[in-house]
Amino acid sequence: MPETKTTALVLAAGKGTRMRSARAKVLQTLLNEPMLFYVYEALAPIVRDDVLTVVGHDADSVAAAFPAMADRFVMQAEQLGTGHALQVAWEAVEKTGATHCLVINGDTPLVTVEALERLMTAREGCDLAFMTITPRDTGAFGRVVRDRERLVRAIVEAKDYDFSQHGPVTGEVNAGIYLLKVATIGPLLEKLENANKSGEYYITDLVGLAVDQGLCVEGVQAGNDVSLMGINSPRELIAAESTLRARIVDELIDRGVLIHNPGTVIIGPRVEIEPGAEIFGHCEIYGASRVAAGARLGSYNHITDATFAPGCVVREFNHIEKAAVGEGATVGPYSRLRPGARLEKNARIGNFVEMKKAVLGEGAKASHLTYLGDAEVGAGANIGAGTITCNYDGKNKFTTRIGAGAFIGSNTALVAPVSVGDNALIGAGSTITKDVPDNQTGIARGKQVNLRRSLKKN
Amino acid sequence: MPETKTTALVLAAGKGTRMRSARAKVLQTLLNEPMLFYVYEALAPIVRDDVLTVVGHDADSVAAAFPAMADRFVMQAEQLGTGHALQVAWEAVEKTGATHCLVINGDTPLVTVEALERLMTAREGCDLAFMTITPRDTGAFGRVVRDRERLVRAIVEAKDYDFSQHGPVTGEVNAGIYLLKVATIGPLLEKLENANKSGEYYITDLVGLAVDQGLCVEGVQAGNDVSLMGINSPRELIAAESTLRARIVDELIDRGVLIHNPGTVIIGPRVEIEPGAEIFGHCEIYGASRVAAGARLGSYNHITDATFAPGCVVREFNHIEKAAVGEGATVGPYSRLRPGARLEKNARIGNFVEMKKAVLGEGAKASHLTYLGDAEVGAGANIGAGTITCNYDGKNKFTTRIGAGAFIGSNTALVAPVSVGDNALIGAGSTITKDVPDNQTGIARGKQVNLRRSLKKN
Amino acid sequence: MPETKTTALVLAAGKGTRMRSARAKVLQTLLNEPMLFYVYEALAPIVRDDVLTVVGHDADSVAAAFPAMADRFVMQAEQLGTGHALQVAWEAVEKTGATHCLVINGDTPLVTVEALERLMTAREGCDLAFMTITPRDTGAFGRVVRDRERLVRAIVEAKDYDFSQHGPVTGEVNAGIYLLKVATIGPLLEKLENANKSGEYYITDLVGLAVDQGLCVEGVQAGNDVSLMGINSPRELIAAESTLRARIVDELIDRGVLIHNPGTVIIGPRVEIEPGAEIFGHCEIYGASRVAAGARLGSYNHITDATFAPGCVVREFNHIEKAAVGEGATVGPYSRLRPGARLEKNARIGNFVEMKKAVLGEGAKASHLTYLGDAEVGAGANIGAGTITCNYDGKNKFTTRIGAGAFIGSNTALVAPVSVGDNALIGAGSTITKDVPDNQTGIARGKQVNLRRSLKKN
Repeated sequence: MPETKTTALVLAAGKGTRMRSARAKVLQTLLNEPMLFYVYEALAPIVRDDVLTVVGHDADSVAAAFPAMADRFVMQAEQLGTGHALQVAWEAVEKTGATHCLVINGDTPLVTVEALERLMTAREGCDLAFMTITPRDTGAFGRVVRDRERLVRAIVEAKDYDFSQHGPVTGEVNAGIYLLKVATIGPLLEKLENANKSGEYYITDLVGLAVDQGLCVEGVQAGNDVSLMGINSPRELIAAESTLRARIVDELIDRGVLIHNPGTVIIGPRVEIEPGAEIFGHCEIYGASRVAAGARLGSYNHITDATFAPGCVVREFNHIEKAAVGEGATVGPYSRLRPGARLEKNARIGNFVEMKKAVLGEGAKASHLTYLGDAEVGAGANIGAGTITCNYDGKNKFTTRIGAGAFIGSNTALVAPVSVGDNALIGAGSTITKDVPDNQTGIARGKQVNLRRSLKKN
Repeated sequence: MPETKTTALVLAAGKGTRMRSARAKVLQTLLNEPMLFYVYEALAPIVRDDVLTVVGHDADSVAAAFPAMADRFVMQAEQLGTGHALQVAWEAVEKTGATHCLVINGDTPLVTVEALERLMTAREGCDLAFMTITPRDTGAFGRVVRDRERLVRAIVEAKDYDFSQHGPVTGEVNAGIYLLKVATIGPLLEKLENANKSGEYYITDLVGLAVDQGLCVEGVQAGNDVSLMGINSPRELIAAESTLRARIVDELIDRGVLIHNPGTVIIGPRVEIEPGAEIFGHCEIYGASRVAAGARLGSYNHITDATFAPGCVVREFNHIEKAAVGEGATVGPYSRLRPGARLEKNARIGNFVEMKKAVLGEGAKASHLTYLGDAEVGAGANIGAGTITCNYDGKNKFTTRIGAGAFIGSNTALVAPVSVGDNALIGAGSTITKDVPDNQTGIARGKQVNLRRSLKKN
Repeated sequence: MPETKTTALVLAAGKGTRMRSARAKVLQTLLNEPMLFYVYEALAPIVRDDVLTVVGHDADSVAAAFPAMADRFVMQAEQLGTGHALQVAWEAVEKTGATHCLVINGDTPLVTVEALERLMTAREGCDLAFMTITPRDTGAFGRVVRDRERLVRAIVEAKDYDFSQHGPVTGEVNAGIYLLKVATIGPLLEKLENANKSGEYYITDLVGLAVDQGLCVEGVQAGNDVSLMGINSPRELIAAESTLRARIVDELIDRGVLIHNPGTVIIGPRVEIEPGAEIFGHCEIYGASRVAAGARLGSYNHITDATFAPGCVVREFNHIEKAAVGEGATVGPYSRLRPGARLEKNARIGNFVEMKKAVLGEGAKASHLTYLGDAEVGAGANIGAGTITCNYDGKNKFTTRIGAGAFIGSNTALVAPVSVGDNALIGAGSTITKDVPDNQTGIARGKQVNLRRSLKKN
């Protein structure tokens, strides 16, 4: 086989009217990842980063969601059909130097690498190959018309199908994934017409055109692999998401992750969990989260882009995002870890405590009703209940530094920028506005008086 | 057909011993609505508000749950059977001027308008009609006895059924929904006897009496529509609730609501959700809640009687009741909105923040560990972490007013009644007891001293 | 039948490599109870406390989990097979004076009393009896070899099975539960060899040895009762846990507990719930928790070892451990009750409130953002929002006492040891370090000044 190079072209311009959303359809999420993510993932082993994407509706949002792909976005300002998308993008395809173009809809999140590989085998000798399926419900999919020798003659859109002209339906429909030989199919693009009931330019018409030209056309049959079908409605999205969810959880259990109550556990496709981790449903783990062997995540947790070291324990009802939980550290219940929160070894964070851009040093504790924002807490420090770092003056954010071994009394406000030294102590109820040196006590509160009970306000 | 008028009579006097509860059985809830709610809902299109209700056990609670119906409650002080209930209520039925009386048990929450409409067709020409079903398990339901011409002869309670007298069982049982012609059936009521194994007056005996009088009696067959069957045990309630839950979620998905993980989502029958809203399970939405298109509700939310405007985002772990979330506003995680909480456009409420009878103005923020009770917060104000409105002096509640653009420093107590002016600033750690004028700074805290660390208490 | 005495011997020394955990396999949990718990429970009606346990891997943790059993633990330092475990423990078995020894693996949490009772019937006349099952998938289980008279000849480990020698497989496998006559089987133990593919001493070889000696050997067939099979992987544990979960919830519903959304409810085997209690899923109830009739537990609760009196209401999102909720008391949402928390009659605890070793007296309230640790609160007291008991000085914990009818103003720190008298009042924002007598007002805060807004820090 001569040298070939394949560029993928992902069609991602549509709104998806039936989704009833202002967002681009390909940004609708399954397990908190946009549909388009799954298509890119399936393409990666096939074409590496030779991926062009045709965008249109809500294109800026698509670019924001996939910044690494955005420099190879092609804008289709008006959406005049799949054939039109191809016309708009063809110059960019040719510029890549590709011999073949793999065209796929961005709304097919269940597509597998295996299916794409099967299509790629048609590169040799074939001018146009496309995948077909024979689902139970052919719905609105384009019908594949074959002649008596079972050779493909055309793809006809469901609403344009004419029994007298196209013969009885066979149930074989177009899955919408094409492999086009750039040299021979490119010239056909300008022949596409929109004289059909939708008034759109169909990529499917290339099949008939190629057949008419005597080119080699192949329909690669994928049986009833409905995973190739696009998602067009909330119900279809929900079904696909359910399939993905069960598949991921099942694979993790197979690999030795102990997932209690697995039917109530949602784990995203990018999450990595080592065998020997223990997870209790109901819970949700998304993004690029990583859970080490020996970590234990309790129920009712909502986790995104966070890492969990061996031996850490995450109790119940925590909300964790872009945070790191160190070895042997304990979280929750009711902890909120926001981006930049980091618990070092054996640190503990307790109930109704929030951390943001904050480090809790080795063995340090913040157990109750506390806000640590833009803060550095040294090893072994104890942060009393109701401690608040006042990191914001309405315009800027400032840092609070708390030394190793420091003890912050309860109900204390630390007005940043401010430092509390190593082994320093803050009296309960203080508002600390000036630095407290190492080993000193800082205190700032009113003196107590006891009076007859009658006073309500001073 | 001559002019008819139908009054419904709902039997709701029972305790439901098998429910093991002190509550009236009809107050047991499905999706947080009492059983009786569903019966009233099914009746509404049939008889509008011509509904009498026979109450007895726990009658005050039933009246409290349905105040709009309570002026048409009939008290059955002793519960001596369904026939007795009818005797007790009959005078009230006649007073309505009804030609027909539709009698239904209040414990049939799955009954449909369609089933009732079918029964209503028997009004013409018939004196007594009742619905029958042929379930797989006939349980304790009254057996329908028909003669050789398939005409109804009687309904016999399961425990009074005598094969020698009544013949082999057919599996057809009484569903407990009757349509009675007032003029002809009324006179039979005084003939009901309690000479049976339960010692109760059975409404079912009217059938035999009517047949004996040569009146027209009809058993309207509803096949195996078990939705007509009453609920007598926790297991039956749970099964009915599960059916209702799935039905509501399924209809919403059909209409274009994107519900992730739908098997874990509970939505009550009065909730309205527009297509284009996005909801993540697990979650619960009850009461008269309304969710607009473009609103997004995360997982682990518990919502009752709340409204959500377009573009608002409700993150995870929130508890929301009788509150309003404005356009583009953000809630949570871990926000508690109690009755009277209102977030205006683009307002934000964060973690461990509670609002009660409080308004957060446009773009205002309360992000951490705060209690806003009986408070009005102006547009663009910033409420620091740990702010507490002291709205209660042990006897009365007072209001806190915070002006537009005000900045409340962290760990502040605002002792109501008190006002903080527009663009005013409160120093962190203050206890504010006196009004702070516009553009001024209020501060009330002790001065800081630093000492050698030894002091523990001052 | 002559007098017999049976001692159980539980094999619990293994690590369970496929569990991928550092823990002893028998400590892996189902519904938050270790596997071994279930085995002990099934044994109790059969042998009462005549239970020896062979431990090895992670033995200290096993002892810590079952302190009452630990004085009858036998240490198997090296794990050289089940036969070796028997050899190691035999002296201890003989010391109990038992005539029979019931040997069971500690990894069979689904085993039932009924199955064990069936095996026990073989005591009469039989020297060695063991349970067999005929599962769909025989996996790695030992194969039962029977002769033409269907008499047991041997048990052969799957990897040692030799068709030419042992004949075609029958599908009958060894369930790993044995009843051994001490007098006749004991002498065979020293004859066990490890000349097999694993190099281990197999208890199963006793079967062949006993047959060779002409002793009576019986395979008690338990059909396809897979509940006897041991748990060797996360997947098997998950499946067993799911079975147990459904069984417990189902039985509770049968007995009259109203469990809404039961598929999402997890209830441990030791939990006791009275008919007439109402529980809303999703929720989890573990340990020795007890829920009285008329108690109502909302959704999203995580409960361990707690008691709930009649008429109490636990709202949503609470975390409750070793705590007691009194009659008519109200909890949550978002309450955390830690060990030693007790709510007396009609007490109320609200959102973002934590209690630890603390009593809230009759009708007392702590509604918002509060930490009560090592505290006693009198009847009818009102604890304002943001109140914190400062119970810890970095070394020791001290007690706070709050009198009946006291009113603690919001945002108050109570520095323990400290007492607030009956009907005393604390001004909002105070830090109380000295006792406040009955009926007096304590106040400790800075005086308020209003300035031009420019000051940021004092």
